[in-house]
Amino acid sequence: MMSDTPTTTSFGMIGLGTMGRNLLLNLADHGFGVAGYDKDSSKLGLLAEEGAGLPVQGFSQIQAFVQSLQTPRSIMLLVPAGKIVDSVIAELQPLLAQGDIIIDGGNSHFTDTNRRAAALEAAGLHFFGMGISGGEEGARFGPSMMPGGDKQAYQVMQPMFEAIAAKVNGEPCVTYIGPGAAGHFVKMVHNGIEYGLMQLIAETYEVLKHGLGLDNAAIGKVFAQWNEGRLQSFLLDITKDIFTFKAPGTDHLLLDDIKDEARSKGTGKWTSQVAMDLEMPLPTVDMAVALRDLSKYKALREKLAAQYGPTSVALAGDKEALLSSLEQAFYFSMVVTYAQGMHLLEKASQEYGYGLQLAEIAKIWRGGCIIRSSFLNDIFNAYQQDPAVEHLLLDAQVTALIQEAVPGARTIVAAAITAGLALPAYAASVSYFDSFRTARLPSNLIQAQRDYFGAHTYELIGHEGVFHTQWTPSHEDAANKKDTPVGPDNTQEQPVIPNK
Amino acid sequence: MMSDTPTTTSFGMIGLGTMGRNLLLNLADHGFGVAGYDKDSSKLGLLAEEGAGLPVQGFSQIQAFVQSLQTPRSIMLLVPAGKIVDSVIAELQPLLAQGDIIIDGGNSHFTDTNRRAAALEAAGLHFFGMGISGGEEGARFGPSMMPGGDKQAYQVMQPMFEAIAAKVNGEPCVTYIGPGAAGHFVKMVHNGIEYGLMQLIAETYEVLKHGLGLDNAAIGKVFAQWNEGRLQSFLLDITKDIFTFKAPGTDHLLLDDIKDEARSKGTGKWTSQVAMDLEMPLPTVDMAVALRDLSKYKALREKLAAQYGPTSVALAGDKEALLSSLEQAFYFSMVVTYAQGMHLLEKASQEYGYGLQLAEIAKIWRGGCIIRSSFLNDIFNAYQQDPAVEHLLLDAQVTALIQEAVPGARTIVAAAITAGLALPAYAASVSYFDSFRTARLPSNLIQAQRDYFGAHTYELIGHEGVFHTQWTPSHEDAANKKDTPVGPDNTQEQPVIPNK
Repeated sequence: MMSDTPTTTSFGMIGLGTMGRNLLLNLADHGFGVAGYDKDSSKLGLLAEEGAGLPVQGFSQIQAFVQSLQTPRSIMLLVPAGKIVDSVIAELQPLLAQGDIIIDGGNSHFTDTNRRAAALEAAGLHFFGMGISGGEEGARFGPSMMPGGDKQAYQVMQPMFEAIAAKVNGEPCVTYIGPGAAGHFVKMVHNGIEYGLMQLIAETYEVLKHGLGLDNAAIGKVFAQWNEGRLQSFLLDITKDIFTFKAPGTDHLLLDDIKDEARSKGTGKWTSQVAMDLEMPLPTVDMAVALRDLSKYKALREKLAAQYGPTSVALAGDKEALLSSLEQAFYFSMVVTYAQGMHLLEKASQEYGYGLQLAEIAKIWRGGCIIRSSFLNDIFNAYQQDPAVEHLLLDAQVTALIQEAVPGARTIVAAAITAGLALPAYAASVSYFDSFRTARLPSNLIQAQRDYFGAHTYELIGHEGVFHTQWTPSHEDAANKKDTPVGPDNTQEQPVIPNK
Repeated sequence: MMSDTPTTTSFGMIGLGTMGRNLLLNLADHGFGVAGYDKDSSKLGLLAEEGAGLPVQGFSQIQAFVQSLQTPRSIMLLVPAGKIVDSVIAELQPLLAQGDIIIDGGNSHFTDTNRRAAALEAAGLHFFGMGISGGEEGARFGPSMMPGGDKQAYQVMQPMFEAIAAKVNGEPCVTYIGPGAAGHFVKMVHNGIEYGLMQLIAETYEVLKHGLGLDNAAIGKVFAQWNEGRLQSFLLDITKDIFTFKAPGTDHLLLDDIKDEARSKGTGKWTSQVAMDLEMPLPTVDMAVALRDLSKYKALREKLAAQYGPTSVALAGDKEALLSSLEQAFYFSMVVTYAQGMHLLEKASQEYGYGLQLAEIAKIWRGGCIIRSSFLNDIFNAYQQDPAVEHLLLDAQVTALIQEAVPGARTIVAAAITAGLALPAYAASVSYFDSFRTARLPSNLIQAQRDYFGAHTYELIGHEGVFHTQWTPSHEDAANKKDTPVGPDNTQEQPVIPNK
């Protein structure tokens, strides 16, 4: 006990790392009595220290922890995603009563959340998968939160979450997302967008440094300036800070001492993999994931650089004009990255019955989370104006923004490709845009090839059904079956199974 | 019974679709007695008809089918990948004897093959996952085959497979690939490369048609010419045919009537997803998968075209020079696509203990399969010369080819991006190349950002360990922990679990 006993203890936390402690302290700051459980006594010591004077209790015994909570209990887990979540649930479940709520606040894969929710709901408990974004600072002073689960049960937690969430124009950055794993799914896509935006910023740094030859001070100034205008975002804000942060005891940036091998914890990869399962193109995120992986092959990169370089990668053109094009290029690619993420959310909502309100999601992403940015207001406006808009790039205001910015994107990417400077995510963003605005793609040739070598059939413009042709020239006069639809049953590459 | 009773029946096939029948007929052509089983009597009728005069027997009862085979039995399944494979195995298994061999010749996911192999090997049977490429024509007259499983057991099938495989310089396009699911894994990667190459050809068609304004006859001539030289490949060969194939009763190409919505059966997607799990960049294949998906959003593409078009997408420059650049661009991107696939095979071989012989794999891909091409000889040579070469692009001969071809790739992609013509796979190939030949990537900024907002730590050039910094300017003078490695245990975003 670290303070006056609160009359009620409204919220429990299992796992008292920095994130868990900070969320508890945030709740306690807002007057909620809270309890924390961890077997690590040093964590309990930190909670006691940081929570002095607040309605915060720490427990080293799970039974006492559970008993301290008012019912229906709200208990969050902030433990590493994976098997540990299952083992904590197994330990916790026998101690709970019907209607109690377990909230997984970690970055669990949404399919794990589906499985856990089904098992716990069947046992009369509620299970929430809740994405939390904002890092340690956000947890302490206002995160963006994406809770998914039983809508009724959400009401128990709603006042607490709304109190501690980040606020934008006085409105909390938390809302009920949807049933099942909707919350974890949306958080995963948030992180996928985050991967894309971070890769774009890294490539911008590359253009500024090698393409335009700016020094760190000048690069930092560009990021700071951009962050004052339409490009304002949390990620640019911290980037600007990074460009002022000296390695201790030196006169150069700490950034320059950091290895260029990017790590990852999997949420970006999951986003790309799930997008592929949902047949949804997400090339900017795919490329960001690929580049994190590629960066780790440092020794191989050095060998290939020796083999194929060194080259000057300075961009041709007037520096001031290129800088202005770069601002457009970044804006364009940022919009395209968000658009890819929103399109994926819309598809997942249909596929999994999440009933996602894209305007609400854009709204709660405007504050507290890692991808918060001025542009999220535009996304919010677009989906508020027309919740059924099929794609963000169809919105009239976004169209105007894109039309203004796309020439800069073309200038920068073309110049970089000519110079040999790698801008993979920028290039992927332009490719996505140009492909999607192509009414007639050359994919008819892919269908013809597939039918030629694998009898996979094709469809015809203006005709129902699927068709197969014997393409081999030597048989040209023989078995052209174009006029005979073969029907979907015959589109298998492999022969059908013996009847049973 | 359709012929003289063969003295022995060496091989059985379950699933008598075109692929299954053709493989049996191919075996019978080479003097092997074979048996086929299918519950669909029409399939048995076709087998009887096509196999007249050959040592081919058809069965509608599985017991009689199994009993007809000499032991140890070799029985292949050619049924659709998925649950059907499991149900056929369940039906078959009780009828088999120790040491009998089941071969799954379909495109099963390699993780399913792992599971099935473990279960069947535990029961005293052998299970092979075997990739077969070449389509119906290949199955009949010489496929490329990728068998994986028990090395000893392979000897039973080896003479048969070597007899029926495609031949290049008299050598069969089949070899023992490796244990477990190695065969299906290699076939999956073959298909991933196939997706990349097909997308590149489709984009080439786009450049020729819209970028250079050629008509179909001229386009077909370009593909035919290319196919005579260093670009020779099966896929170009059939593409050239497609550009001569008229829609029946008309004077225009059937190709022009085919819908531009590309379908897929999943193997390309699996390749990209697995590459992400193995932290292996595969951007050309990723982009090919994304573009198949994107192509299906036809109605949305038409809306976006109306919103952002129409534009002229003619490439600026001299047409003859551009055509010559395009040949280089295609060659360059083709090499990069194969290189990505080979790199993935090398990584998977390490990760899964497949012991893959990349030279052997290149060798058996030179004939019979969909990605066969003249360049596979260069790949074969590269890995034969140095089996341990870390990346195909490090090979001296390949380096020379790339250095000659990359200017054309830059010219075409830069011109297309300027004109607004979508060349996503071409651009991804250049991005991959330029990223991999960059000794120092901007990924240090990503690491700094991750540490800033999530305390994910970073590594320093020339220092062991991982480090965390309190980046926030307001705390700049406080807790800079740079000199204190925090150790891998502390790199978790989420707090560690309570001790148990």
